[in-house]
Amino acid sequence: MGDSLVKKIRAGSQRAVAQAISLVENQVDEGKALLGQLYDPQSKAYRIGLTGPPGAGKSTLAKNLATLWRDAGAKVGIISVDPTSPFTGGALLGDRLRMAQLFGDSKIFIRSMATRGATGGLAARSEDVSLVLEAAGFEVLILETVGVGQVELDIMNAVDTTVLVLVPESGDEVQLMKAGIIEIADIFVINKSDRPGSGKLKKAIEQLLELKNDQDDWNLPVVNTCATSGEGTAELFDCITRHQQYLEHSGTITGNRVERDKRHVKEIVNGEKMDAFWTPEKENLLDQQVGKMSPMELSRLLLEQD
Amino acid sequence: MGDSLVKKIRAGSQRAVAQAISLVENQVDEGKALLGQLYDPQSKAYRIGLTGPPGAGKSTLAKNLATLWRDAGAKVGIISVDPTSPFTGGALLGDRLRMAQLFGDSKIFIRSMATRGATGGLAARSEDVSLVLEAAGFEVLILETVGVGQVELDIMNAVDTTVLVLVPESGDEVQLMKAGIIEIADIFVINKSDRPGSGKLKKAIEQLLELKNDQDDWNLPVVNTCATSGEGTAELFDCITRHQQYLEHSGTITGNRVERDKRHVKEIVNGEKMDAFWTPEKENLLDQQVGKMSPMELSRLLLEQD
Repeated sequence: MGDSLVKKIRAGSQRAVAQAISLVENQVDEGKALLGQLYDPQSKAYRIGLTGPPGAGKSTLAKNLATLWRDAGAKVGIISVDPTSPFTGGALLGDRLRMAQLFGDSKIFIRSMATRGATGGLAARSEDVSLVLEAAGFEVLILETVGVGQVELDIMNAVDTTVLVLVPESGDEVQLMKAGIIEIADIFVINKSDRPGSGKLKKAIEQLLELKNDQDDWNLPVVNTCATSGEGTAELFDCITRHQQYLEHSGTITGNRVERDKRHVKEIVNGEKMDAFWTPEKENLLDQQVGKMSPMELSRLLLEQD
Repeated sequence: MGDSLVKKIRAGSQRAVAQAISLVENQVDEGKALLGQLYDPQSKAYRIGLTGPPGAGKSTLAKNLATLWRDAGAKVGIISVDPTSPFTGGALLGDRLRMAQLFGDSKIFIRSMATRGATGGLAARSEDVSLVLEAAGFEVLILETVGVGQVELDIMNAVDTTVLVLVPESGDEVQLMKAGIIEIADIFVINKSDRPGSGKLKKAIEQLLELKNDQDDWNLPVVNTCATSGEGTAELFDCITRHQQYLEHSGTITGNRVERDKRHVKEIVNGEKMDAFWTPEKENLLDQQVGKMSPMELSRLLLEQD
């Protein structure tokens, strides 16, 4: 079955792709073996990350951008990652909403991902899903995340172009500083720019970026958009294309992708090591001894069992 | 030196506490040994977590609450965790602002924490810092986090009472669903309630909680506050105290704390395993082979070296 599935994926069957992603997400051995067969260092999609606060309109922007790439002849995948949904299943709702709108468009593939447990590893899973889509000939991948936590930063570190989506209410400079992700953004978007305060925010961001723009070759653009009306999407599309050209001409893209692959390998290795370590016997020992000695002593005891 | 430092910490010396936290944060062997000596299953502080979007006023609320506990005779620690700051050092700015305001108050201890690398482990570090403060006789710990990512969820899973701080602009129910953390919140706060929309948001949250409140013994309160004027802080304080009584009477608190200790042990063990695995030789092998084979094959090769 493995071989024929690989063939179907390479032929671009959406059904085979969906099946492969399920195998990969569930982390069964079959999924792991499949990833090994699918990997091809030559087939790399261009990856764009959209991040920012909840409700900033990232999904709509992703959809708008995907449509522009599709119109330019590219196969586009949208991967929507919601690290907070173990508690609500929130990604499922979003998934259904989005699927309804783009349903039947065979050139745009949409997938929502959420942590099913508290185990993390979401960044590694989204990397696995990206590999499947690359094998299926997708040329552009849009990774959309909610929030500004560590998982999002990990995912944004693994894309080629990072777009930070804000809204006029995102407020003053100090808050932006706190958002942290500002340091890894390549393009800034102020979405919902029909609302008051968008001009003020744009100026504030541009001021904040002055120093950085003086030092770097890439001048960080700030784009005003209105995702619901589609205004500004073409300009954002142009900015992303320019950034792609910049990365390719400067050679930065190669180094970035090597780093990304290294992180991916580390995540796989670390996951395997943990799975191998936490045998039922060690879990039992932990259950029995917790609270009876300090966490440090108990850790030592557990490590000695290995 | 170790023994006398332990004594000074137990005696409540702020200077010794600060020194111990630095040792613990830097993860030197001395810090690990110290934690083992400091651990006392009997001395547990009551832990409150404040979380919510950036700019919601959590720091000011934390300060207001800390003052109320101090006035009630308790020693209070505020731990401010900012997982996004590897990129900005944002926590440092916040730290300085807050320190200036509470400087000289020997009953309130404030510490900001940020990831210095991309390694994560911030939840484990905040647990270590909490242990130090507990050993120094702190009875109440307020853990404040920015954002709604995995690190924040991990930290909120490790407190006794989780307070979700929103602002009137936090918007409609769908966004709340997406915020995810709603499922682990014990108390909801709408801060900056002098701004328009706070009544509407309160109603929306209460509607959303109806089903949950029908099933649970603890009725999730929604409190309006205005942190800058101090309005509503006393009510929030009462809610937290009621929740503490509820947890103690129902016995839930014991089970929660066992789970917390188990997670802490696991984090220590996993960290140690990773440190032991990634020798310079394996890092070299990764550097040499990355991109030449699939991430899965390379992982297998690396795991075989162990």
